[in-house]
Amino acid sequence: MKVRVLGAAAGGGFPQWNCRCSNCRRLRQGSLKGRSRTQAQLAVSADEKSWILLNASPDLRAQIESTPELWPASSIRHSPISSVVLTSAELDAVLGLLLLREFYPLQVYATASVRRILTEDNSMFAMLHRVEGQIRWHDLPASGKLVIDGLTFETFSDPSGFPGFVNEDRAQTLDQSEAVVGLIVGDGAKVAFVPGSANMDAALLQRLSNCHTVLFDGTFWSDDELVRVLGGAKHAREMGHLPISGESGSLRQLASLTQQRKIFIHVNNTNPILDEESAEFAETRRAGWEVASDGDTFTL
Amino acid sequence: MKVRVLGAAAGGGFPQWNCRCSNCRRLRQGSLKGRSRTQAQLAVSADEKSWILLNASPDLRAQIESTPELWPASSIRHSPISSVVLTSAELDAVLGLLLLREFYPLQVYATASVRRILTEDNSMFAMLHRVEGQIRWHDLPASGKLVIDGLTFETFSDPSGFPGFVNEDRAQTLDQSEAVVGLIVGDGAKVAFVPGSANMDAALLQRLSNCHTVLFDGTFWSDDELVRVLGGAKHAREMGHLPISGESGSLRQLASLTQQRKIFIHVNNTNPILDEESAEFAETRRAGWEVASDGDTFTL
Repeated sequence: MKVRVLGAAAGGGFPQWNCRCSNCRRLRQGSLKGRSRTQAQLAVSADEKSWILLNASPDLRAQIESTPELWPASSIRHSPISSVVLTSAELDAVLGLLLLREFYPLQVYATASVRRILTEDNSMFAMLHRVEGQIRWHDLPASGKLVIDGLTFETFSDPSGFPGFVNEDRAQTLDQSEAVVGLIVGDGAKVAFVPGSANMDAALLQRLSNCHTVLFDGTFWSDDELVRVLGGAKHAREMGHLPISGESGSLRQLASLTQQRKIFIHVNNTNPILDEESAEFAETRRAGWEVASDGDTFTL
Repeated sequence: MKVRVLGAAAGGGFPQWNCRCSNCRRLRQGSLKGRSRTQAQLAVSADEKSWILLNASPDLRAQIESTPELWPASSIRHSPISSVVLTSAELDAVLGLLLLREFYPLQVYATASVRRILTEDNSMFAMLHRVEGQIRWHDLPASGKLVIDGLTFETFSDPSGFPGFVNEDRAQTLDQSEAVVGLIVGDGAKVAFVPGSANMDAALLQRLSNCHTVLFDGTFWSDDELVRVLGGAKHAREMGHLPISGESGSLRQLASLTQQRKIFIHVNNTNPILDEESAEFAETRRAGWEVASDGDTFTL
Protein backbone atom coordinates (compact mmCIF):
# COMPACT_ATOMS: atom_id res chain seq x y z
CA MET A 1 0.00 0.00 0.00
CA LYS A 2 1.18 3.51 -0.83
CA VAL A 3 0.24 6.45 1.38
CA ARG A 4 0.81 9.88 -0.06
CA VAL A 5 0.59 13.10 1.96
CA LEU A 6 -0.89 15.70 -0.40
CA GLY A 7 -1.26 18.25 2.38
CA ALA A 8 -0.10 18.34 6.00
CA ALA A 9 -1.44 21.61 7.45
CA ALA A 10 -4.55 22.30 9.48
CA GLY A 11 -7.39 24.49 8.17
CA GLY A 12 -6.09 27.72 6.64
CA GLY A 13 -2.82 26.08 5.53
CA PHE A 14 0.69 27.35 6.18
CA PRO A 15 1.04 30.22 5.74
CA GLN A 16 -2.52 31.33 6.43
CA TRP A 17 -3.88 34.25 4.38
CA ASN A 18 -4.49 36.65 7.29
CA CYS A 19 -1.83 35.46 9.74
CA ARG A 20 1.38 37.21 10.65
CA CYS A 21 2.41 35.02 13.57
CA SER A 22 6.12 34.33 13.92
CA ASN A 23 5.91 31.20 11.74
CA CYS A 24 3.87 32.77 8.91
CA ARG A 25 5.87 35.99 8.88
CA ARG A 26 9.24 34.26 8.77
CA LEU A 27 8.09 31.72 6.18
CA ARG A 28 7.03 34.56 3.83
CA GLN A 29 10.32 36.38 4.48
CA GLY A 30 12.30 33.24 3.71
CA SER A 31 13.91 33.27 7.17
CA LEU A 32 12.17 30.21 8.64
CA LYS A 33 13.76 26.79 8.48
CA GLY A 34 10.56 25.03 7.55
CA ARG A 35 8.25 24.38 4.64
CA SER A 36 4.91 25.74 3.47
CA ARG A 37 2.10 23.19 3.64
CA THR A 38 -1.33 22.90 2.07
CA GLN A 39 -4.38 21.74 4.01
CA ALA A 40 -4.42 18.13 5.27
CA GLN A 41 -5.08 15.59 2.55
CA LEU A 42 -4.07 11.96 2.06
CA ALA A 43 -4.26 9.58 -0.89
CA VAL A 44 -3.86 5.82 -0.50
CA SER A 45 -3.60 3.07 -3.07
CA ALA A 46 -3.34 -0.71 -3.09
CA ASP A 47 -2.04 -0.93 -6.65
CA GLU A 48 -0.78 2.61 -7.48
CA LYS A 49 -3.28 2.71 -10.32
CA SER A 50 -6.47 3.51 -8.47
CA TRP A 51 -6.28 6.04 -5.61
CA ILE A 52 -8.58 6.73 -2.67
CA LEU A 53 -8.63 10.22 -1.20
CA LEU A 54 -8.92 10.49 2.57
CA ASN A 55 -10.95 13.69 2.92
CA ALA A 56 -11.26 16.35 0.24
CA SER A 57 -9.32 19.46 1.20
CA PRO A 58 -9.94 22.97 -0.20
CA ASP A 59 -6.44 22.78 -1.76
CA LEU A 60 -7.24 19.64 -3.74
CA ARG A 61 -6.89 21.22 -7.18
CA ALA A 62 -3.29 22.29 -6.58
CA GLN A 63 -2.56 19.07 -4.67
CA ILE A 64 -3.65 16.93 -7.63
CA GLU A 65 -1.64 19.03 -10.09
CA SER A 66 1.52 18.61 -8.01
CA THR A 67 1.09 14.80 -7.95
CA PRO A 68 1.65 13.17 -11.39
CA GLU A 69 0.26 9.84 -10.09
CA LEU A 70 -3.14 11.55 -9.87
CA TRP A 71 -3.18 13.00 -13.39
CA PRO A 72 -5.63 11.63 -15.96
CA ALA A 73 -3.94 8.80 -17.83
CA SER A 74 -6.38 7.74 -20.52
CA SER A 75 -9.24 9.18 -22.60
CA ILE A 76 -10.34 12.81 -22.62
CA ARG A 77 -11.90 12.78 -19.17
CA HIS A 78 -10.31 10.47 -16.64
CA SER A 79 -8.86 10.38 -13.15
CA PRO A 80 -6.95 7.73 -11.19
CA ILE A 81 -9.02 8.92 -8.20
CA SER A 82 -11.77 6.35 -7.67
CA SER A 83 -13.13 7.18 -4.24
CA VAL A 84 -13.21 9.73 -1.44
CA VAL A 85 -13.60 8.80 2.24
CA LEU A 86 -14.72 11.65 4.51
CA THR A 87 -13.86 11.67 8.22
CA SER A 88 -16.15 14.61 9.12
CA ALA A 89 -18.17 17.47 7.63
CA GLU A 90 -15.54 20.09 8.56
CA LEU A 91 -14.92 22.54 5.70
CA ASP A 92 -11.23 21.58 5.56
CA ALA A 93 -12.28 17.97 5.02
CA VAL A 94 -15.06 18.37 2.47
CA LEU A 95 -14.78 21.55 0.37
CA GLY A 96 -12.55 19.77 -2.14
CA LEU A 97 -15.51 17.59 -3.16
CA LEU A 98 -16.98 20.67 -4.82
CA LEU A 99 -13.77 20.92 -6.89
CA LEU A 100 -14.32 17.41 -8.27
CA ARG A 101 -17.61 18.25 -9.91
CA GLU A 102 -16.73 17.96 -13.58
CA PHE A 103 -18.90 15.00 -14.40
CA TYR A 104 -16.51 12.25 -13.43
CA PRO A 105 -17.88 9.20 -11.56
CA LEU A 106 -16.67 9.05 -7.97
CA GLN A 107 -17.62 6.91 -5.00
CA VAL A 108 -17.94 8.99 -1.83
CA TYR A 109 -17.96 7.33 1.60
CA ALA A 110 -19.31 9.29 4.56
CA THR A 111 -21.39 8.59 7.64
CA ALA A 112 -25.11 9.12 7.10
CA SER A 113 -24.99 12.23 9.33
CA VAL A 114 -22.09 13.79 7.41
CA ARG A 115 -23.83 13.04 4.10
CA ARG A 116 -27.05 14.62 5.38
CA ILE A 117 -25.24 17.81 6.45
CA LEU A 118 -23.67 18.14 3.02
CA THR A 119 -26.57 17.17 0.77
CA GLU A 120 -29.60 18.30 2.79
CA ASP A 121 -28.23 21.51 4.32
CA ASN A 122 -26.04 22.77 1.48
CA SER A 123 -27.65 23.21 -1.92
CA MET A 124 -24.24 23.59 -3.60
CA PHE A 125 -23.68 19.86 -3.30
CA ALA A 126 -26.43 19.40 -5.89
CA MET A 127 -23.64 20.22 -8.39
CA LEU A 128 -22.34 16.71 -7.72
CA HIS A 129 -25.60 15.19 -8.96
CA ARG A 130 -26.23 16.95 -12.25
CA VAL A 131 -25.80 13.78 -14.27
CA GLU A 132 -26.70 10.18 -13.50
CA GLY A 133 -23.81 8.24 -11.99
CA GLN A 134 -21.66 11.30 -11.29
CA ILE A 135 -21.22 10.89 -7.54
CA ARG A 136 -22.43 7.87 -5.64
CA TRP A 137 -22.74 8.14 -1.88
CA HIS A 138 -21.99 5.14 0.33
CA ASP A 139 -22.65 4.90 4.05
CA LEU A 140 -19.51 4.79 6.14
CA PRO A 141 -20.22 3.15 9.50
CA ALA A 142 -19.09 5.26 12.49
CA SER A 143 -17.57 2.08 13.84
CA GLY A 144 -17.06 -0.89 11.58
CA LYS A 145 -15.16 -2.35 8.63
CA LEU A 146 -15.51 -2.19 4.88
CA VAL A 147 -13.38 -2.81 1.79
CA ILE A 148 -12.83 0.01 -0.72
CA ASP A 149 -10.84 -0.65 -3.89
CA GLY A 150 -9.00 -3.60 -2.41
CA LEU A 151 -8.13 -1.93 0.90
CA THR A 152 -9.77 -2.69 4.25
CA PHE A 153 -11.00 0.38 6.12
CA GLU A 154 -11.73 0.20 9.84
CA THR A 155 -13.59 3.18 11.28
CA PHE A 156 -14.03 4.33 14.85
CA SER A 157 -16.01 7.19 16.30
CA ASP A 158 -14.28 10.21 17.84
CA PRO A 159 -16.27 12.34 20.31
CA SER A 160 -15.24 15.70 18.76
CA GLY A 161 -18.74 16.69 17.62
CA PHE A 162 -20.17 18.35 14.51
CA PRO A 163 -18.59 21.42 12.82
CA GLY A 164 -19.38 24.89 14.11
CA PHE A 165 -21.76 25.62 11.22
CA VAL A 166 -24.16 22.83 12.29
CA ASN A 167 -26.53 24.45 14.77
CA GLU A 168 -27.82 22.79 17.95
CA ASP A 169 -31.27 22.04 16.57
CA ARG A 170 -29.85 20.35 13.51
CA ALA A 171 -27.28 18.41 15.53
CA GLN A 172 -30.13 16.96 17.64
CA THR A 173 -31.55 15.29 14.52
CA LEU A 174 -28.20 13.63 13.69
CA ASP A 175 -26.22 10.80 15.22
CA GLN A 176 -23.49 12.31 17.38
CA SER A 177 -21.34 9.19 17.02
CA GLU A 178 -21.22 9.87 13.27
CA ALA A 179 -19.75 13.40 13.57
CA VAL A 180 -16.06 12.46 13.34
CA VAL A 181 -14.47 9.11 12.55
CA GLY A 182 -10.89 7.95 12.64
CA LEU A 183 -9.64 5.57 9.95
CA ILE A 184 -7.35 2.56 9.97
CA VAL A 185 -6.47 1.44 6.45
CA GLY A 186 -4.78 -1.68 5.18
CA ASP A 187 -4.71 -5.43 5.58
CA GLY A 188 -1.22 -6.50 6.61
CA ALA A 189 0.63 -3.36 7.70
CA LYS A 190 -1.92 -0.69 8.56
CA VAL A 191 -1.92 3.10 8.64
CA ALA A 192 -4.06 5.11 11.07
CA PHE A 193 -5.39 8.52 9.99
CA VAL A 194 -6.65 10.59 12.90
CA PRO A 195 -6.47 14.27 11.82
CA GLY A 196 -8.63 15.46 14.72
CA SER A 197 -8.88 13.80 18.09
CA ALA A 198 -10.39 15.40 21.15
CA ASN A 199 -9.65 12.48 23.37
CA MET A 200 -7.23 9.64 23.97
CA ASP A 201 -8.39 6.51 25.72
CA ALA A 202 -7.29 2.90 26.13
CA ALA A 203 -9.39 1.73 23.18
CA LEU A 204 -7.83 4.24 20.76
CA LEU A 205 -4.34 3.50 22.09
CA GLN A 206 -5.00 -0.21 21.50
CA ARG A 207 -6.16 0.44 17.92
CA LEU A 208 -3.12 2.58 17.13
CA SER A 209 -0.78 -0.03 18.62
CA ASN A 210 -1.95 -2.44 15.91
CA CYS A 211 -0.81 -0.07 13.15
CA HIS A 212 2.53 0.19 11.35
CA THR A 213 2.19 3.94 10.77
CA VAL A 214 0.17 6.48 12.75
CA LEU A 215 -0.76 9.84 11.20
CA PHE A 216 -2.11 11.75 14.18
CA ASP A 217 -3.63 15.14 15.04
CA GLY A 218 -0.71 17.58 15.33
CA THR A 219 -2.81 20.73 15.22
CA PHE A 220 -1.52 22.52 18.32
CA TRP A 221 1.60 22.26 20.43
CA SER A 222 -0.15 23.52 23.57
CA ASP A 223 -3.74 23.74 24.72
CA ASP A 224 -3.59 27.57 24.98
CA GLU A 225 -1.54 28.14 21.80
CA LEU A 226 -4.13 30.21 19.94
CA VAL A 227 -5.07 32.13 23.08
CA ARG A 228 -1.45 33.18 23.55
CA VAL A 229 -0.69 33.94 19.91
CA LEU A 230 -3.92 35.81 19.19
CA GLY A 231 -4.64 37.20 22.63
CA GLY A 232 -8.04 35.53 22.81
CA ALA A 233 -9.37 32.42 21.08
CA LYS A 234 -10.47 28.90 21.89
CA HIS A 235 -8.34 26.28 23.57
CA ALA A 236 -7.16 23.27 21.54
CA ARG A 237 -9.36 20.79 23.43
CA GLU A 238 -12.44 22.99 22.97
CA MET A 239 -11.75 22.78 19.24
CA GLY A 240 -11.54 18.99 19.28
CA HIS A 241 -7.76 18.73 19.23
CA LEU A 242 -5.50 17.02 21.75
CA PRO A 243 -2.41 19.23 22.15
CA ILE A 244 1.02 17.70 21.56
CA SER A 245 2.73 18.88 24.76
CA GLY A 246 1.86 18.75 28.45
CA GLU A 247 0.88 16.12 30.99
CA SER A 248 -2.01 14.78 28.94
CA GLY A 249 -0.68 15.75 25.51
CA SER A 250 -0.16 13.29 22.69
CA LEU A 251 3.62 12.95 23.16
CA ARG A 252 3.03 11.48 26.63
CA GLN A 253 -0.20 9.66 25.92
CA LEU A 254 1.26 7.88 22.89
CA ALA A 255 4.71 7.30 24.43
CA SER A 256 3.96 3.61 24.82
CA LEU A 257 3.74 3.22 21.03
CA THR A 258 7.41 2.46 20.44
CA GLN A 259 7.10 0.12 17.44
CA GLN A 260 5.11 2.51 15.26
CA ARG A 261 6.17 5.14 12.81
CA LYS A 262 4.45 8.18 14.38
CA ILE A 263 3.79 11.29 12.30
CA PHE A 264 2.00 14.50 13.17
CA ILE A 265 -0.37 15.79 10.49
CA HIS A 266 -3.00 18.59 10.35
CA VAL A 267 -0.46 21.02 11.84
CA ASN A 268 -1.71 24.54 12.50
CA ASN A 269 0.28 27.50 11.18
CA THR A 270 0.95 28.70 14.75
CA ASN A 271 2.49 25.39 15.89
CA PRO A 272 6.20 25.79 16.79
CA ILE A 273 7.03 22.31 15.38
CA LEU A 274 6.80 23.89 11.90
CA ASP A 275 10.06 25.69 12.77
CA GLU A 276 12.75 23.03 12.40
CA GLU A 277 15.12 25.07 14.57
CA SER A 278 12.69 25.29 17.50
CA ALA A 279 13.05 23.50 20.83
CA GLU A 280 9.57 22.05 20.27
CA PHE A 281 10.58 20.48 16.94
CA ALA A 282 13.67 18.97 18.62
CA GLU A 283 11.55 17.59 21.47
CA THR A 284 9.08 16.09 18.98
CA ARG A 285 11.87 14.36 17.06
CA ARG A 286 13.52 13.11 20.29
CA ALA A 287 10.18 11.57 21.27
CA GLY A 288 10.30 9.55 18.04
CA TRP A 289 7.78 11.58 16.06
CA GLU A 290 8.01 13.02 12.55
CA VAL A 291 6.17 16.06 11.20
CA ALA A 292 4.39 15.42 7.89
CA SER A 293 5.17 17.57 4.84
CA ASP A 294 3.37 17.83 1.50
CA GLY A 295 4.67 15.16 -0.85
CA ASP A 296 5.72 12.63 1.81
CA THR A 297 5.14 9.07 0.59
CA PHE A 298 5.05 5.95 2.74
CA THR A 299 5.12 2.37 1.51
CA LEU A 300 3.56 -0.19 3.82
CA MET B 1 -6.49 52.36 -9.88
CA LYS B 2 -4.62 49.05 -9.94
CA VAL B 3 -6.27 45.94 -11.38
CA ARG B 4 -4.59 42.66 -10.63
CA VAL B 5 -5.51 39.37 -12.32
CA LEU B 6 -5.10 36.71 -9.62
CA GLY B 7 -6.63 34.02 -11.82
CA ALA B 8 -7.67 33.93 -15.48
CA ALA B 9 -9.18 30.46 -16.06
CA ALA B 10 -12.79 29.33 -16.03
CA GLY B 11 -14.12 26.86 -13.44
CA GLY B 12 -11.82 23.87 -13.04
CA GLY B 13 -8.71 25.93 -13.84
CA PHE B 14 -6.03 25.10 -16.38
CA PRO B 15 -5.15 22.28 -16.34
CA GLN B 16 -8.32 20.73 -14.96
CA TRP B 17 -7.93 17.74 -12.60
CA ASN B 18 -9.77 15.19 -14.78
CA CYS B 19 -9.09 16.61 -18.26
CA ARG B 20 -6.73 15.21 -20.86
CA CYS B 21 -7.77 17.41 -23.77
CA SER B 22 -5.01 18.54 -26.10
CA ASN B 23 -4.36 21.70 -24.05
CA CYS B 24 -4.27 19.99 -20.63
CA ARG B 25 -2.21 17.03 -21.83
CA ARG B 26 0.40 19.17 -23.55
CA LEU B 27 0.59 21.63 -20.65
CA ARG B 28 1.36 18.78 -18.21
CA GLN B 29 3.93 17.34 -20.65
CA GLY B 30 5.60 20.74 -20.99
CA SER B 31 5.02 20.78 -24.75
CA LEU B 32 2.40 23.55 -24.91
CA LYS B 33 3.38 27.14 -25.53
CA GLY B 34 1.04 28.53 -22.92
CA ARG B 35 0.69 29.01 -19.20
CA SER B 36 -1.25 27.29 -16.41
CA ARG B 37 -3.96 29.47 -14.92
CA THR B 38 -5.96 29.41 -11.70
CA GLN B 39 -9.69 30.11 -11.58
CA ALA B 40 -10.86 33.64 -12.47
CA GLN B 41 -10.20 36.19 -9.75
CA LEU B 42 -9.52 39.93 -9.76
CA ALA B 43 -8.34 42.36 -7.11
CA VAL B 44 -8.68 46.13 -7.52
CA SER B 45 -7.38 48.99 -5.43
CA ALA B 46 -7.61 52.76 -5.42
CA ASP B 47 -4.58 53.27 -3.17
CA GLU B 48 -2.68 49.92 -3.31
CA LYS B 49 -3.16 49.63 0.43
CA SER B 50 -6.71 48.38 0.63
CA TRP B 51 -7.82 45.80 -1.94
CA ILE B 52 -11.26 44.75 -3.14
CA LEU B 53 -11.69 41.21 -4.46
CA LEU B 54 -13.99 40.79 -7.45
CA ASN B 55 -15.47 37.34 -6.74
CA ALA B 56 -13.90 34.77 -4.43
CA SER B 57 -12.45 31.88 -6.40
CA PRO B 58 -11.78 28.38 -5.03
CA ASP B 59 -8.05 29.04 -5.66
CA LEU B 60 -7.99 32.14 -3.47
CA ARG B 61 -5.60 30.74 -0.85
CA ALA B 62 -2.85 30.09 -3.41
CA GLN B 63 -3.70 33.31 -5.28
CA ILE B 64 -3.21 35.41 -2.13
CA GLU B 65 0.07 33.67 -1.28
CA SER B 66 1.46 34.39 -4.75
CA THR B 67 0.61 38.11 -4.41
CA PRO B 68 2.78 39.91 -1.81
CA GLU B 69 0.51 42.98 -1.99
CA LEU B 70 -2.20 40.88 -0.35
CA TRP B 71 -0.10 39.57 2.54
CA PRO B 72 -0.85 40.73 6.09
CA ALA B 73 1.25 43.80 6.81
CA SER B 74 0.59 44.65 10.44
CA SER B 75 -0.44 42.96 13.71
CA ILE B 76 -0.89 39.22 14.21
CA ARG B 77 -4.08 38.95 12.20
CA HIS B 78 -4.47 41.32 9.30
CA SER B 79 -5.22 41.47 5.59
CA PRO B 80 -5.06 44.24 3.00
CA ILE B 81 -8.29 42.72 1.63
CA SER B 82 -11.14 44.92 2.80
CA SER B 83 -14.07 43.80 0.67
CA VAL B 84 -15.37 41.17 -1.71
CA VAL B 85 -17.85 41.90 -4.52
CA LEU B 86 -19.69 38.85 -5.89
CA THR B 87 -21.04 38.81 -9.44
CA SER B 88 -23.06 35.58 -9.04
CA ALA B 89 -23.55 32.55 -6.78
CA GLU B 90 -21.59 30.22 -9.10
CA LEU B 91 -19.20 27.97 -7.15
CA ASP B 92 -16.19 29.38 -9.05
CA ALA B 93 -17.19 32.85 -7.91
CA VAL B 94 -18.03 32.23 -4.24
CA LEU B 95 -16.25 29.18 -2.77
CA GLY B 96 -13.24 31.30 -1.85
CA LEU B 97 -15.36 33.15 0.69
CA LEU B 98 -15.27 29.98 2.81
CA LEU B 99 -11.47 30.20 2.74
CA LEU B 100 -11.59 33.66 4.31
CA ARG B 101 -13.27 32.50 7.48
CA GLU B 102 -10.54 33.01 10.05
CA PHE B 103 -12.23 35.72 12.05
CA TYR B 104 -11.16 38.69 10.00
CA PRO B 105 -13.67 41.48 9.32
CA LEU B 106 -14.68 41.64 5.65
CA GLN B 107 -17.37 43.55 3.79
CA VAL B 108 -19.14 41.34 1.27
CA TYR B 109 -21.28 42.86 -1.51
CA ALA B 110 -23.78 40.63 -3.30
CA THR B 111 -27.29 40.97 -4.68
CA ALA B 112 -29.98 39.98 -2.19
CA SER B 113 -30.74 36.84 -4.22
CA VAL B 114 -27.10 35.73 -4.29
CA ARG B 115 -26.81 36.36 -0.55
CA ARG B 116 -29.95 34.35 0.12
CA ILE B 117 -28.68 31.38 -1.90
CA LEU B 118 -25.45 31.38 0.07
CA THR B 119 -26.70 32.07 3.58
CA GLU B 120 -30.18 30.51 3.54
CA ASP B 121 -29.52 27.43 1.40
CA ASN B 122 -25.98 26.56 2.49
CA SER B 123 -25.37 26.06 6.20
CA MET B 124 -21.58 26.15 5.69
CA PHE B 125 -21.74 29.91 5.27
CA ALA B 126 -22.61 30.12 8.98
CA MET B 127 -18.83 29.74 9.46
CA LEU B 128 -18.57 33.36 8.33
CA HIS B 129 -20.74 34.51 11.23
CA ARG B 130 -19.22 32.81 14.24
CA VAL B 131 -18.13 36.08 15.79
CA GLU B 132 -19.73 39.51 15.77
CA GLY B 133 -18.43 41.73 12.99
CA GLN B 134 -16.66 38.93 11.10
CA ILE B 135 -18.46 39.24 7.76
CA ARG B 136 -20.86 42.02 6.96
CA TRP B 137 -23.18 41.59 4.00
CA HIS B 138 -24.15 44.58 1.86
CA ASP B 139 -26.78 44.61 -0.85
CA LEU B 140 -25.38 45.02 -4.34
CA PRO B 141 -28.01 46.44 -6.69
CA ALA B 142 -28.47 44.37 -9.86
CA SER B 143 -28.35 47.65 -11.69
CA GLY B 144 -27.04 50.75 -9.99
CA LYS B 145 -24.04 52.53 -8.52
CA LEU B 146 -22.21 52.46 -5.23
CA VAL B 147 -18.83 53.45 -3.82
CA ILE B 148 -16.65 50.81 -2.16
CA ASP B 149 -13.34 51.83 -0.60
CA GLY B 150 -12.99 54.92 -2.73
CA LEU B 151 -13.90 53.24 -6.03
CA THR B 152 -17.20 53.69 -7.87
CA PHE B 153 -18.88 50.43 -8.85
CA GLU B 154 -21.56 50.38 -11.54
CA THR B 155 -23.53 47.16 -11.82
CA PHE B 156 -25.72 45.83 -14.60
CA SER B 157 -27.83 42.70 -14.80
CA ASP B 158 -26.90 39.85 -17.16
CA PRO B 159 -29.65 37.40 -18.20
CA SER B 160 -27.54 34.25 -17.58
CA GLY B 161 -29.65 32.89 -14.74
CA PHE B 162 -28.90 31.18 -11.42
CA PRO B 163 -26.31 28.40 -11.02
CA GLY B 164 -27.25 24.79 -11.77
CA PHE B 165 -27.51 23.89 -8.08
CA VAL B 166 -30.42 26.32 -7.54
CA ASN B 167 -33.53 24.34 -8.34
CA GLU B 168 -36.56 25.72 -10.22
CA ASP B 169 -38.73 26.09 -7.12
CA ARG B 170 -36.06 28.05 -5.31
CA ALA B 171 -35.31 30.21 -8.35
CA GLN B 172 -39.00 31.22 -8.44
CA THR B 173 -38.64 32.83 -5.02
CA LEU B 174 -35.64 34.90 -6.12
CA ASP B 175 -35.22 37.91 -8.38
CA GLN B 176 -33.98 36.66 -11.76
CA SER B 177 -32.38 40.02 -12.53
CA GLU B 178 -30.12 39.50 -9.50
CA ALA B 179 -28.63 36.18 -10.69
CA VAL B 180 -25.59 37.56 -12.52
CA VAL B 181 -24.24 41.10 -12.61
CA GLY B 182 -21.47 42.68 -14.61
CA LEU B 183 -19.24 45.29 -12.98
CA ILE B 184 -17.73 48.56 -14.16
CA VAL B 185 -15.20 49.91 -11.70
CA GLY B 186 -13.48 53.26 -11.44
CA ASP B 187 -14.09 56.95 -11.69
CA GLY B 188 -11.94 58.41 -14.44
CA ALA B 189 -10.63 55.47 -16.47
CA LYS B 190 -12.89 52.49 -15.88
CA VAL B 191 -12.47 48.73 -16.08
CA ALA B 192 -15.33 46.39 -17.00
CA PHE B 193 -15.42 42.89 -15.50
CA VAL B 194 -17.83 40.57 -17.30
CA PRO B 195 -16.64 36.98 -16.64
CA GLY B 196 -19.87 35.42 -17.88
CA SER B 197 -22.16 36.94 -20.48
CA ALA B 198 -24.90 35.06 -22.26
CA ASN B 199 -25.85 37.96 -24.40
CA MET B 200 -24.55 41.05 -26.14
CA ASP B 201 -26.84 43.96 -26.82
CA ALA B 202 -26.60 47.64 -27.61
CA ALA B 203 -26.84 48.64 -23.96
CA LEU B 204 -23.91 46.43 -22.93
CA LEU B 205 -21.87 47.56 -25.93
CA GLN B 206 -22.53 51.15 -24.93
CA ARG B 207 -21.43 50.50 -21.35
CA LEU B 208 -18.23 48.79 -22.46
CA SER B 209 -17.45 51.60 -24.88
CA ASN B 210 -17.20 53.96 -21.91
CA CYS B 211 -14.43 51.86 -20.33
CA HIS B 212 -10.67 52.07 -20.70
CA THR B 213 -10.18 48.32 -20.18
CA VAL B 214 -12.62 45.49 -20.80
CA LEU B 215 -12.12 42.10 -19.12
CA PHE B 216 -14.66 39.93 -20.91
CA ASP B 217 -15.99 36.35 -20.92
CA GLY B 218 -13.43 34.28 -22.86
CA THR B 219 -14.72 30.89 -21.72
CA PHE B 220 -15.16 29.18 -25.08
CA TRP B 221 -13.80 29.73 -28.57
CA SER B 222 -16.84 28.17 -30.25
CA ASP B 223 -20.40 27.46 -29.22
CA ASP B 224 -19.95 23.67 -29.66
CA GLU B 225 -16.43 23.48 -28.18
CA LEU B 226 -17.28 21.17 -25.27
CA VAL B 227 -19.56 19.04 -27.43
CA ARG B 228 -16.71 18.42 -29.86
CA VAL B 229 -13.98 17.89 -27.27
CA LEU B 230 -16.02 15.68 -24.94
CA GLY B 231 -18.34 14.08 -27.46
CA GLY B 232 -21.45 15.31 -25.65
CA ALA B 233 -21.95 18.30 -23.37
CA LYS B 234 -23.74 21.64 -23.30
CA HIS B 235 -23.23 24.43 -25.79
CA ALA B 236 -21.51 27.62 -24.66
CA ARG B 237 -24.66 29.74 -24.89
CA GLU B 238 -26.68 27.20 -22.89
CA MET B 239 -24.05 27.63 -20.17
CA GLY B 240 -24.38 31.41 -20.19
CA HIS B 241 -21.27 32.15 -22.25
CA LEU B 242 -21.01 34.02 -25.51
CA PRO B 243 -18.41 32.18 -27.65
CA ILE B 244 -15.45 34.15 -29.01
CA SER B 245 -15.68 33.07 -32.65
CA GLY B 246 -18.45 32.96 -35.23
CA GLU B 247 -20.99 35.36 -36.71
CA SER B 248 -22.39 36.41 -33.35
CA GLY B 249 -19.28 35.72 -31.27
CA SER B 250 -17.58 38.34 -29.12
CA LEU B 251 -14.77 39.11 -31.60
CA ARG B 252 -17.36 40.38 -34.11
CA GLN B 253 -19.83 41.82 -31.66
CA LEU B 254 -17.17 43.85 -29.87
CA ALA B 255 -15.24 44.79 -33.03
CA SER B 256 -16.53 48.36 -32.81
CA LEU B 257 -14.66 48.84 -29.52
CA THR B 258 -11.40 50.08 -31.02
CA GLN B 259 -10.28 52.47 -28.28
CA GLN B 260 -10.42 49.94 -25.47
CA ARG B 261 -7.88 47.52 -24.12
CA LYS B 262 -9.80 44.26 -24.59
CA ILE B 263 -8.83 41.18 -22.61
CA PHE B 264 -10.40 37.74 -22.45
CA ILE B 265 -10.70 36.26 -18.95
CA HIS B 266 -12.44 33.18 -17.49
CA VAL B 267 -10.88 31.03 -20.21
CA ASN B 268 -11.85 27.34 -20.21
CA ASN B 269 -9.11 24.70 -20.33
CA THR B 270 -10.40 23.46 -23.71
CA ASN B 271 -10.17 26.90 -25.39
CA PRO B 272 -7.56 26.92 -28.20
CA ILE B 273 -6.53 30.52 -27.36
CA LEU B 274 -4.59 29.04 -24.40
CA ASP B 275 -2.18 27.64 -26.99
CA GLU B 276 -0.07 30.61 -28.09
CA GLU B 277 0.92 28.79 -31.28
CA SER B 278 -2.68 28.19 -32.36
CA ALA B 279 -4.44 29.89 -35.27
CA GLU B 280 -7.18 30.93 -32.83
CA PHE B 281 -4.68 32.72 -30.58
CA ALA B 282 -3.26 34.52 -33.61
CA GLU B 283 -6.75 35.53 -34.76
CA THR B 284 -7.58 36.81 -31.28
CA ARG B 285 -4.43 38.93 -31.15
CA ARG B 286 -5.00 40.24 -34.70
CA ALA B 287 -8.47 41.34 -33.60
CA GLY B 288 -6.84 43.47 -30.92
CA TRP B 289 -7.58 41.23 -27.94
CA GLU B 290 -5.27 39.97 -25.20
CA VAL B 291 -5.67 36.77 -23.19
CA ALA B 292 -5.36 37.31 -19.43
CA SER B 293 -2.79 35.38 -17.40
CA ASP B 294 -2.39 35.03 -13.65
CA GLY B 295 -0.34 37.92 -12.31
CA ASP B 296 -1.25 40.46 -15.01
CA THR B 297 -1.46 43.96 -13.54
CA PHE B 298 -3.12 46.97 -15.15
CA THR B 299 -2.79 50.57 -14.03
CA LEU B 300 -5.68 52.83 -15.00
